[in-house]
Formats: sequence, structure tokens, C-alpha cells
Amino acid sequence: MTKYVYLFTEGNGKMRELLGGKGANLAEMTGLGMPVPQGFTITTEACTRYYEDGEKIAPEIEAQITEYLGKMEEITGKKFGDPTNPLLVSVRSGARASMPGMMDTVLNLGINDEVVEGVAKLTNNPRFAYDSYRRFIQMFSDVVMEVPKASFEQFIDQIKERRGIKLDTEMDADDMRELVSMYKKYFFEQKGFDFPTDPRVQLMEAVRAVFRSWNNARAIVYRRMNDIPSSWGTAVNVQSMVYGNMGETSGTGVAFTRNPSTGEKKLYGEFLMNAQGEDVVAGVRTPQSIDQLREVMPEVYEQFAGIADRLEKHYRDMQDMEFTIERGRLYMLQTRNGKRTAQAALKIAVDLVDEGMCTPEEVILKVDPKQLDSLLHPQFEPAALKAARPVAAGLPASPGAACGRVYFNAESASEAAERGEPVILTRLETSPEDIEGMAAAQGILTVRGGMTSHAAVVARGMGRCCVSGCSEIKINEEEKYFVICGQTVREGDFISLDGSTGNIYIGELPTAEAAITGNFARFMKWVDEIRTLHVRANADTPHDARQAVEFGAEGIGLCRTEHMFFEADRIAAVREMIVSKDEAQRRVALAKLLPIQRGDFEGIFRAMEGRPVTIRLLDPPLHEFLPTEEDDIRALAAEMKMSVEELKSTIAYLHEFNPMMGHRGCRLAVTYPEIAEMQVRAIVEAAVNVKRECGYDIVPEIMVPLVCDRKELHFVRGVIEKVADEVIAASGLEMHYKIGTMIEIPRAAVTADQIAEEAEFFSFGTNDLTQMTFGFSRDDAGKFLNHYYTRKIFESDPFARLDQNGVGRLVEMASNLGRKTRPDIKLGICGEHGGDPSSVEFCHRIGLNYVSCSPFRVPIARLAAAQAKVNEKK
Amino acid sequence: MTKYVYLFTEGNGKMRELLGGKGANLAEMTGLGMPVPQGFTITTEACTRYYEDGEKIAPEIEAQITEYLGKMEEITGKKFGDPTNPLLVSVRSGARASMPGMMDTVLNLGINDEVVEGVAKLTNNPRFAYDSYRRFIQMFSDVVMEVPKASFEQFIDQIKERRGIKLDTEMDADDMRELVSMYKKYFFEQKGFDFPTDPRVQLMEAVRAVFRSWNNARAIVYRRMNDIPSSWGTAVNVQSMVYGNMGETSGTGVAFTRNPSTGEKKLYGEFLMNAQGEDVVAGVRTPQSIDQLREVMPEVYEQFAGIADRLEKHYRDMQDMEFTIERGRLYMLQTRNGKRTAQAALKIAVDLVDEGMCTPEEVILKVDPKQLDSLLHPQFEPAALKAARPVAAGLPASPGAACGRVYFNAESASEAAERGEPVILTRLETSPEDIEGMAAAQGILTVRGGMTSHAAVVARGMGRCCVSGCSEIKINEEEKYFVICGQTVREGDFISLDGSTGNIYIGELPTAEAAITGNFARFMKWVDEIRTLHVRANADTPHDARQAVEFGAEGIGLCRTEHMFFEADRIAAVREMIVSKDEAQRRVALAKLLPIQRGDFEGIFRAMEGRPVTIRLLDPPLHEFLPTEEDDIRALAAEMKMSVEELKSTIAYLHEFNPMMGHRGCRLAVTYPEIAEMQVRAIVEAAVNVKRECGYDIVPEIMVPLVCDRKELHFVRGVIEKVADEVIAASGLEMHYKIGTMIEIPRAAVTADQIAEEAEFFSFGTNDLTQMTFGFSRDDAGKFLNHYYTRKIFESDPFARLDQNGVGRLVEMASNLGRKTRPDIKLGICGEHGGDPSSVEFCHRIGLNYVSCSPFRVPIARLAAAQAKVNEKK
Repeated sequence: MTKYVYLFTEGNGKMRELLGGKGANLAEMTGLGMPVPQGFTITTEACTRYYEDGEKIAPEIEAQITEYLGKMEEITGKKFGDPTNPLLVSVRSGARASMPGMMDTVLNLGINDEVVEGVAKLTNNPRFAYDSYRRFIQMFSDVVMEVPKASFEQFIDQIKERRGIKLDTEMDADDMRELVSMYKKYFFEQKGFDFPTDPRVQLMEAVRAVFRSWNNARAIVYRRMNDIPSSWGTAVNVQSMVYGNMGETSGTGVAFTRNPSTGEKKLYGEFLMNAQGEDVVAGVRTPQSIDQLREVMPEVYEQFAGIADRLEKHYRDMQDMEFTIERGRLYMLQTRNGKRTAQAALKIAVDLVDEGMCTPEEVILKVDPKQLDSLLHPQFEPAALKAARPVAAGLPASPGAACGRVYFNAESASEAAERGEPVILTRLETSPEDIEGMAAAQGILTVRGGMTSHAAVVARGMGRCCVSGCSEIKINEEEKYFVICGQTVREGDFISLDGSTGNIYIGELPTAEAAITGNFARFMKWVDEIRTLHVRANADTPHDARQAVEFGAEGIGLCRTEHMFFEADRIAAVREMIVSKDEAQRRVALAKLLPIQRGDFEGIFRAMEGRPVTIRLLDPPLHEFLPTEEDDIRALAAEMKMSVEELKSTIAYLHEFNPMMGHRGCRLAVTYPEIAEMQVRAIVEAAVNVKRECGYDIVPEIMVPLVCDRKELHFVRGVIEKVADEVIAASGLEMHYKIGTMIEIPRAAVTADQIAEEAEFFSFGTNDLTQMTFGFSRDDAGKFLNHYYTRKIFESDPFARLDQNGVGRLVEMASNLGRKTRPDIKLGICGEHGGDPSSVEFCHRIGLNYVSCSPFRVPIARLAAAQAKVNEKK
Repeated sequence: MTKYVYLFTEGNGKMRELLGGKGANLAEMTGLGMPVPQGFTITTEACTRYYEDGEKIAPEIEAQITEYLGKMEEITGKKFGDPTNPLLVSVRSGARASMPGMMDTVLNLGINDEVVEGVAKLTNNPRFAYDSYRRFIQMFSDVVMEVPKASFEQFIDQIKERRGIKLDTEMDADDMRELVSMYKKYFFEQKGFDFPTDPRVQLMEAVRAVFRSWNNARAIVYRRMNDIPSSWGTAVNVQSMVYGNMGETSGTGVAFTRNPSTGEKKLYGEFLMNAQGEDVVAGVRTPQSIDQLREVMPEVYEQFAGIADRLEKHYRDMQDMEFTIERGRLYMLQTRNGKRTAQAALKIAVDLVDEGMCTPEEVILKVDPKQLDSLLHPQFEPAALKAARPVAAGLPASPGAACGRVYFNAESASEAAERGEPVILTRLETSPEDIEGMAAAQGILTVRGGMTSHAAVVARGMGRCCVSGCSEIKINEEEKYFVICGQTVREGDFISLDGSTGNIYIGELPTAEAAITGNFARFMKWVDEIRTLHVRANADTPHDARQAVEFGAEGIGLCRTEHMFFEADRIAAVREMIVSKDEAQRRVALAKLLPIQRGDFEGIFRAMEGRPVTIRLLDPPLHEFLPTEEDDIRALAAEMKMSVEELKSTIAYLHEFNPMMGHRGCRLAVTYPEIAEMQVRAIVEAAVNVKRECGYDIVPEIMVPLVCDRKELHFVRGVIEKVADEVIAASGLEMHYKIGTMIEIPRAAVTADQIAEEAEFFSFGTNDLTQMTFGFSRDDAGKFLNHYYTRKIFESDPFARLDQNGVGRLVEMASNLGRKTRPDIKLGICGEHGGDPSSVEFCHRIGLNYVSCSPFRVPIARLAAAQAKVNEKK
């Protein structure tokens, strides 16, 4: 028979999966001989079983709980429900990972009309007893019975008013007794049945409530944001009560072994004498610093400091502890690895190594890769942030904080930026024409589009803060205003965006610049020594390339040539090329583009100083480059010496029903090989020039997008080789180049063995691959994805976190098929997932050679890769 | 060493793959002791090798050709290039399958200035010798050297004019000799080198030309239309010449052992005395019926009739033979299974069984499934068709012939049809709003859209002729005219369409109605007894359902509920449902739809008389149902009591960038479960009512479209079960139902093991699966697919013929994964591929339970399924 319940004396710190973090640590502390109020843990398996059984607690589990309650009675020498010697307990949830959003604590469980009298007698403190009882009713009703805690406050007010007193503490035992009966009456009115007085019923209801809370809306959202699978379940901890509010020798507090903001090595925390935990939170009295405990109760302080030191050494990490002092006696209620800021995380990691407590391999696991983001981007000043209240939230599309004046189009944003104003570009959605405006802005806000929308991808690449897909906004771009949460924001008004949370604030919130310390460099050096997965960056310009190298990129995994096409000095030639009537006319336009593209590539090759650079041939459908506004159309028609009607009919002809699945990628190279020829010529001529100029050993990697069939790549390969070989021969230099392909279409993954015959490398384009594999467009999915989260169909955004079950199966299949044909094939990933830690771990596991992500995510990917390597060894 | 050349005496009829059809049959006739001019065949492997070697004939192959030429000289007792006893040969291509579009024959090869004199002397007929020589130069120049045959005709005219004669036959030996030198001079002018006079050079050049012709444009198109892989290659036959133009006891002809138009069992054909094959084709003299040969040369006739009879019995099929009589001696030049009309094919098949020559299993292989189409649809009268010339061609989207007056919108088409006019609905592209007009029309013509565009799919379902995607048309729907090939066609003008070829004719071409004979029924009975793969139909209305049963469907594999939504009596309620502001409002609109949908399903269940019916829940994105015209929008706004602006903003909100990958399929059921609830209620209530009324044992199969994840299906399954169980319980009847899913998204295929936990059946929606797997939209692919054909990247349209290499891998993977989880899972296919013979064969091979296709393709699928079964046994 499965064991569903463990005494604290039966478990240990390694049993996290079964006992949850809190339960495992309570057991571990018990094992270390520390003063822990005893109790038992109901396992996460019991929670899973609860859901399997259709949200019912199996009789078998209930029997074990009863059995262990008996053992607990033996250990504590008290009896559950016995007024003469009552055992009161706390019930707390405790998942494998710390998870706010689940059930709060229920304290004092086991109390009822009889037991309360016993408590009064035993403590000789009827007020304490009835206060405990009424607190229990309030808490239990709130977290177990869905009667809000606040709705009980009216009765306290009634009594205080009648008695003409102001403070809760002024209420006496009789007041408390009256409160209990008012609470019970109110409960009956609300629920239609009596407040449960049988302690065993109370316990089972509380356990059930913990299990239930695993799937409440807040918990689901939290799990999605933190990549926690819903299959884990939560454990339940039942612990005997100790009281910090039993007089002046009692108290309660929390402390960290090091400063969680700075990382400084010094006990840090606060406590409150004669109080329960909830009083600390309520903020009626100001807690004292933990240092002062040394003066108030020196022996207890010494004991606590000793325990803290022992726990840190034991766990080899900074600890976050809760304790209670009951009549001069110290009890440890919890310990766990403490949360910390990014700065603190780095300092602690470096110190732990310097102190000889940990190896570099160990400390790199103690820093959350996603945290590094905050070191690279501006953040709101913490105090200002604490005081501010967001009016709405969109998707946290690109991290960092930004504050500026709202502008509604790229042009006026750029102009305002030139005047020196801070700018927030606000758009229904962005398009490639907005790039200049995005570059000029501090932050970007869009009404439509997901985590991999145009705005999000470009903003991340630039390191600009971006909040996307805020559907609560009603925007009127024409008249230059938007309405959010009932307030109208006009051009020039200030707003503030938090790209790390998606929050939107009206008005100015002060930001603090990013700051990288020396610890960062030391830490990342260890990271790079440990990892085996290479990290490249997606970069389209010399500026991005330099940025990427600064952040530690080992090469460029994806250089998107089309982003260059939108700049003012070339868009005219691009459009001319597109509306050409025949190949000859097209070649004339392409000849104008050649020197410009060559110049772009020269800049990138110079910036990369010989590191590998993968350049992708033109990918988007041509209509993306054409004007949509009447004026622009007229101008282009005049320039092209064609009638407006003729141009419009060309634009109409290029219209597509599903542009994502249209005439793009290498399909362009198949229909217009001359475009690919120009691009290849520009790439190879640039490589030749920079090699000649700087002596770097450049091996350009030319990448063909959107391939679906071997023969398709064979054809394009022929086009590339012809031009490349010609340019190299003419140069007189020796130069090698590689031809590879994106694997971003399901058919390419399925037939990767065949495609590998033509490709020297694969780069998994997991953005498009995710779209095609799921069959939904990232631009349209916003309308229904929220329902998928709330109905628990999806637990995470497949565009942010690689879907290992579906898309991942294809990636792995394609990797295996590719290596079967060509054992030395180079495999990488260049979708947005390249910067997501769990996806990086997946890439390491299936043996890819590199991941490529936007420059600002390179440090994250480096750390995630190192963590994957260390975890693999375990 | 590979043997690349076979003497006719070395091969046999079974060596088709290696020797091609023509070569294998020549060898077989040789083996049967029939009078065949001897020679050798260069294998298809030599052709494949030629392409592998970069379009070069390997020295090794050339050596074998030389060696076998020597053997041929021994057998014939003549010598190649020897004026005293010259061997002249014909060179012909011959692929595994008969394939027009490849190289024509070269006759008289081996002749030159010396040899011609020898021929003149030996035949004592200088005119014959020089006529042969000049014919050779002309033919060789044309098919080997790319100097068009017609460009030589000017010299014949010059001579005739100078000599004042009219007929070629009036030219004498000197004229012919002069012609030879004029030809050679002209050749030199055209090519810059002398006409090759070395017989061995002539031979190798001719062989190379045959190989080359395997990949000319016409051959590629023909292969694509007939599912012939380019990897097969062609063989080359080198045969010693015999002459039908050596005087009055010589002649040449072609004959069939049965009438290829009617199937009547009687020698059928024609011949011409003193003529070569090309004279018969030229049509200068009228050939005589083969019967008359009995009077002209009774012995030869008897010999030929005997051989014909023997050949038919030997091949057990109607034969198409070519023969030549040289100075009273009969030579067989070719035999093959004869092409025949659909009517003839059925009669011959039935007769062959009745005559005891074949078993039913054998004869079903002798009918091309695609031919059955012509039995089910009107066709142009053959004589009229022969005389007509198409002005353009689109895609042959739905078979049959149609002739009618052009109308440019559904409304005027319907009105014209009501007036009794025959109608061709002509549109840029059709949308669901056009359905009524399509039903009223004889034929549909669209400018845009592929083989699986809306127009094509709906037209095939209705059995209407359709030509789609004719991009040569410039259409102006507003002003009601289109321009094609320089001619303007206005509303009311007659045009004619051939949906089987895609040809478009201006004016009226008379059509003949479809005619099904008794042979069809007998034949299809055998077909049904043999096949094991079930065949269902895609049918959305009671009318279609009855039609499907008539054509032998065993059930409905796909009933698309949305097609019902467009009819006039319900579109208002549908639109009301879509623009509803909340669930309550939506439920009011759905309540109006419920009785209508229930009525639809009752009609279908009645028509199907207890046969299985799979009904798919709503699939298309909701915006497809909303009006696009200003007037319609105003009307709907008024009806819905909302402002036009509000309605427009709702429509704008519903707009999607990539509707194919948008908010559709079961995503609608996830966001608006109430829609699915209404549909399930309508289905199950209808089933209950019809079961009660007619006593059929109805087991409704409810199909969930566009599933990508197990949990998604789990959710929708819950919605379905709740309503279905409720309705059944309320009915008091016992009723079972099945819940299954479309597999049409790559992720569903990849995770089919998980999805099978929730699905009792899979139906592969290969239309969408093809789109998503290739990553291109069928509506947009038209713009680039032609380049893919001409560049030989694709050999067939993946929307018409299942891509077994890519999409097929996914289908097979999903089938295996599905059966792993649920061994008795029912597997079917319901894409357009269900009616394509090669795809049906694939479905049989991987063990699907059924295919489902449009009613008019059901007979094709039945035959293809039976053929797959027979071929599997082989």
C-alpha cells in the first residue's frame, strides 16, 4: 500500500518531490535536532491521487491521516479535540517549488466550543483562547469555506463602537466570546449549515482545501509564468501550534542568513514580541530588526544565530527562516533557500565560492537565468514601484522599465526623440515600417500581438522595453489617443511600462539604469567554462553584432537580411525591385541594392572579428515591403513611372490570404533566383573584402529559409554555389563557405534525412515551426490562448517556452534524421526559444551544437546552458 | 558490370521496368516467334545513369551499345554504315508507362551520302533511297538537333514551284537528291556545323536525345498529370527498319483487337498501302479499314488476325498493334494494351470475364479509376470537341463539361437559372456566400484558387464542372466582363468549360449527358467484393447523402456542419450568434439555430438509413459568416439593433492575419462551448428522432476538428458527453455515440498516442494537414507552385495527390501511434485525397479503415481500393 503520510521524523530534505519544499525542510531540521514543532506531511502523491479520483480523498488516505494524527498525539503528548489537553495544529500547503497563490495557512485548527474552554483553563488566559478561536473561524471560513475574511470585520467594528474603544487589543475576553458567536451565526447565514466543530472534519476540510487550491486561477497563472507543471501537485503540512502571542517572552519573526538585496553576509530580518505571524503582516506595530533580538533575549538570539549558521552551511545557500518564541523557547517553523535580487544572487554566488563553501559548478545553479535580465535593462526604482498601481497589464514582451511620452506613429516618435523627449511608441500593432520609431523609443506598447509578435521580437533584439497585446486598450491612432481603464491618454502624455511584468502605469515612474558589477564577469567566466552548448546571437546590424559580442555571443546564429531593407536609403530600391515587370527590370533594381547590402555585411563581419556568422536569405513575403497608405502609393507610382491603378493592381496581386503560409522564404529564391544571387554576391564579396582588410578567417554561413523539400534546397543551393564560387574565384583569395537551412516547416523536420543531403547545417526556426506544428498564427492566437490557459489545456505559452512534447518531438526527430545522413551536421536553434532557459536545457539534452537568441538574452542562455550541463551530470 | 543493353531475343514481357513497355513487348513478341524486325533495347537504368553522370553517356554504356550493334548486324546479316549491305534502324523512346510528350521516332538512321547510294542500288529505287535520306535529315534535325521539321518544308515548296508540280509524290529522284543537299546546307546555316554523317555519331546523338526528352517540359507536365515518377527514366529501342513504302505489296497500319470506343469484340483499325507511318498521320491519303485488308492481301490479313488473336489471349487484354508489310511480308512493330473509353473499358472487362479469359480480380486492374469520372458527368460531344480550340486553360478542378451564359455573381446566376438559362458562374474566387449560385450553375470558372480552393471543393461535392485558377483571365466583376486571350466576354455571353482538362472555350460546345450502363453495376459489384478498404462520402445535405449512397458510399465520413449555416433561412441567426456580446445573447441566437440544425441532421440520418455518419463540429473562423458589403453590414446592424460603427468594429476585431491558422475548429468550442453544445444537441436529438421514427440503429460519430493537444480534446469531449448523455437519458432510448477527431495539424499527428486516449476514431484531414505540413496555404500557393513544377522540385500537386514522403510519413506515424494506445481505433481519411487513386492505395497500404471523398468520386475510390487489394496480393 502506498504511504501517503510521513512524520517529520520519517522524512528528510531530499524528499522534496514527495513532501514539498516546506515538508522536506521541516523533516530535515527535525533530523538535525533543531527545535521544530512536530507534525506530519501528506504527500504530493495524495494530491495527484485526489485529482485522479475526481476530486475526492480516498478512504485509504483519510485512514492514514487519522493514523498519523494518533502518532502526532503520542509525540506531543496532547490529544486532538480533547478539552483537557488539546492538540491544536496549523495546516499549510507546500509544493515542490515555492508557490504563492495557493492556499494560505489555517492556524489553531482543532478548536471548538469545548476545546476553547480547555485552552482558557490551561493557559489561564480566556482572552487568548477566544481570540485564537475567533481567528480560526475567520481564517477557516476564508480559505476553506469561501466566506471572505474581510466580511467578518464588521462585527469587530460593531463591538468596538458599542464599547467605545478603538484598538483590537482593547477588546476583552467577553468581547472575544461574543465575537465567536456572531461569527458562527454569520457563517450559518452565508453557508446554510453550521460552522464545523468536529476537529476531524475541520482537518479533512482543510486538507481538501489545500488540494483544491493547487488548481485555483492564481496558482495556474503562477505556474504558467514559472514553468511549473500542474502534474506535480502540492503536499499538506500539519504541524502542532506554537504561540508567539503568549506574553512578553513570546514573539515571532523572519530572517535571512544574508542580505537578500545586496548579498552582504550578515543576519538580516525582523521580529515582533507578543505577536502572531499575521500581526507582523498587518503592520499595526513596527517590527524590530533581528539585531535587537540580541538585546531583548540574548540566549534565544545566540541559539537562533547558531541555527541560522548551521542551516546555511548545511544547505550551502542563503536561508530564509521563520521562527516563533513561545514563553522564551525558540521554535523553527520553516527554512528555505532565500529569494534574492540579481545583484545579491551574484554576490552570494561569488562569496560562497570564495568562502570555500561551494564549487563554481554548485553556485551557478543558485542563480535564476531569467534574473540576469534585470542587470541588463533599466528597472523602476523600487520605492516608486512599490507605491505605484498599474492601470492594466499586457504581455511582458521585452524586459526592462521605460517611462516616456506617448506617440502614435514612428515618425512623430522619431521627431520627439530628436527633440530629446523620452518616448513610448504606442501602436495597434507594429510593422517593419515602424523600426525607426521603435529604435527611437524608450519603450513600445501594442494593443495586439503575442510574445513573438513583430513588436516583441524586434524590441528584444534592440533591448527595448516592450509590453504587447494589451487588449484592454481602445486605441484611435488617427486621432492620437487611447483609452485604458476608463482614462484617456493623449499624444505627449507620460506613461510608464514594465516590460518584465507587462504592467502599464499612467504618469512618470522614475527608472534606474542597468548596472553590471565585477561579480557578473567572474560568475559568467565560470558559466562559460562549464557549459558545452554554444551560444550565438540573432543580430541584423553591426550595432547589434557588437552588442552581442559584448554580452558574450560566440557568433551570429541568425542575421535577418530583410530588416536592412526597410531603412530609408534602400526601401525605394527594394520597392522598385518588387514591382518590376520582368527579370531585366528587377536586375536593375537589385544592382542598386548590391553595394548597400555588401556594406551591411562588411560591417557585421568586421564587428564579429572572424566569429561565425549565419546569414539568412530574404524571408518575408514581398508585399510586406510595399506601401499601404494612399500617399506613399502615389509617390512610389510616380517614382516607378507607372499609373496608380497599375501599382494598386500589383499590390492587390501580391495580397495573400495567409501570408504566413504564402510566397516567402526560399519560395522567393525559387521564383526569383536573381534576388538570392544578389544577396549571395553581397555576402561573399563582403567576406572577401573584410578578410582582405582585416585578415579574419571568415567562413560565411548562408542559410536558406522555409525549406520543405530536399529538391527545393538543391535548386537554391545551385544558385548560391554558382555565384559564390564565381566571386571567390574572381577574388583570388581562398575562402570556404557553408550552405544550410532553417528547419521551420514540419515537412522539413519529417524529411530531415533527405534535406541533410543538401545542408551542412540545420537551424531550427522554432517560431515558425511552433506556428505550423500547432497550426496557429502567433498574430491571431491571442484571441483564444487565454481560454486555453484558464481551461488548463496549455500550461505555458508555446511561443515563449518550447513545446517539448510536440514541437520538441519534431526537433529531436529532425536532429536524429539529419545526423543519420550527415554525422557532422551542425545543429542550432534560432527561434525566440533560444533565450528561454527550459528550452535551452532541452537543446543541450538533445545534443544541439548551439542556441541563438537576441543579444540581451545571451547571458541568460549562457547560464541556462551551464546549468543544463551540471544537471545532466547529476 | 551492369548490363545496359538487351537484344529483343534476351528480354521478355515482364521486363517492363528495365526495358520500357515498348521494348518489353517487342522482346515478348520475339519470344512468341512473331515476325518482329530485330534489334536491341537500351535500358531505363542507362537513362538514370545518364542523369546521375550529369547528362553524359558513360563510356561503358557506349561500349555496350557498340557491342550490341555488332550482334544486331549478325542477326540481320546487314552492316551499319556499309553501302553494299546497309543496316538502317529506327530509334524510339519507350518508358515503363506509355508517355506521349517524349521524343518521337527517328527512322532510317544510319543513312548518309554513301549509304544512300547503296540503298538506291539494292532497292533499285533511287527515289525511295533519297526520299528516305531527306526524311531522315528532317526528322533527325527536328527531334535530335532542335531544328524544327517545318522549317525544311520551304525547300519542298521551292522545288515544287520551280517544277510546276503540286504533290510530293510527283517529285522524282533528282528532286529528292537536290532536297538532300538543300537540307544539309540549311542545317549547317542553322547549327554552324555539318549534318552528322557518321552513322555511329547519329546513333549516339539519337540515344542522347531520347534520354534528354525524358525531362522536357511536356514530359514533366504529362508525368505530373499521370503520377509517373521522374526517377523511372526511359528506355531506347533500336530496331532494324522495314518499309511499307516499297510499292504496291507494301503497306503499314494500326489495329485494335476490340473497338476502343465501344468495346465491341471485332478487329478494328486502318491501313495504307505503299506508305510509311508518317504518311498515315499526315492524312494526305485516306486509310482503308482493316477489314479491307482481307480483300487486298488475304494471306497477310489472316496472318495478322491470327497474331492479333494470339496477342490478346497472351496478354489477356485488348491490344493496340502497329504493323508494316514490306513486299508482301508482315512485320509487327509494336503491341500494347490499348487505350479505350470508359464505356469500352467496362464492356471489355465484363466480356473478358464472360469469355473466361480473365477473373474479376484481373479485369478490375484494366480500368483506370479516374476514367469512371466520365461516366458520371456530362462530356462534350467528341466531334465538336475535336473541332474546337480552347482559348485558355485553368486547373481541372471538378470534372465534366459545361456550357452556358456567363454571370458574375451568385444572385444574377440564380436568377438566370430560374429563367431557364444555362449558367457559368465566373468569379475572381468563390466564397461560401456563392454556394447558391454555384448550385444553380452548370459550371464554375474562377481566376484564383487551386485544386482544393473553395470553388473546387464545393464544385466536386456538387458534381458541378469547375475550372479554377485561370490566371490568364483579367476579370472586372463590377462591370461584368472579363478578358481572355484578347477577347472580351460579357455577362450573358456563352462559354464552355471542360472540368476534366481545364480547357476554356468561347461560345457553345454541345454536351452529352452522363450514361451509366449495366456493365457498370456488374463491374462495381466485383470491385466491392474484392476491396477491404471502406469508402464513405463527404456529404453535407440530405441531397448529397442520397447521391453518395447511389454511388455506393458506405457511410458519411465528413459532414461539414458549416455549409448548412450559409443558407438563407439561417444565416441571420448565425450572424446574430457571432456578434453577440455575451454568452447569454449567444445562447438566444443558438436556440434559434437548434431546430434548423436538428432538421438538417434528421434529413441526413434518414437518407443514410442507419449507415455510419461522421459529423464535424463547426470549423471555419466566425468572420467567414459575416457580411463584407456595406449594404449587408447596415442591414445586419439594424437587425441586431447596434450601430454600424459598433458592428464594423466587431468585424474588424474578428479580422485575422492568417485565418487558416486562426480562431477556428475546436478552438471555437474551447472559447464558446455553447456553440458545440447546440450542435451536439441537434445531432443527438436528430439521431433519437430518426431512430424512433424509422428504427435504424444510429450511432452518431461526432468529430472534433483541428485538435492539436490531448487536453484540448479532453475538454471538448467533456462538453459533448454532458449534452449527449443528457439528451439520450431524456429520450428513454438506448443509443451509443462515438467521439473522435480530425488529425489535420502536425502536432496532432506527432502526439497521436496521447490524443488517442480521448478519441475513438481519427479522420485524417489531409487538406489542412498538407497545408500545415508544407507550410503553404492552398489559396496562396498558386503564385509559386508552377515554378516548382517547371524546376522539377515538385512532381505533383500535393493537394491533389497525397505527398507520401512527407504528409504520408505523418499519417503513418499517427496511425501507428494511435493504434499503440487504442488497438481498435477507427482510422479514416476525409481530405480531397480520399478520391485520388494513388492516395487511396496508400491508405489501403497503411491499413486505414476507410477513405471518404465527395460523392462523385466514390466509384473511383471503390475501384482504387479494390486495385490496391489485388496489387497487394501480387
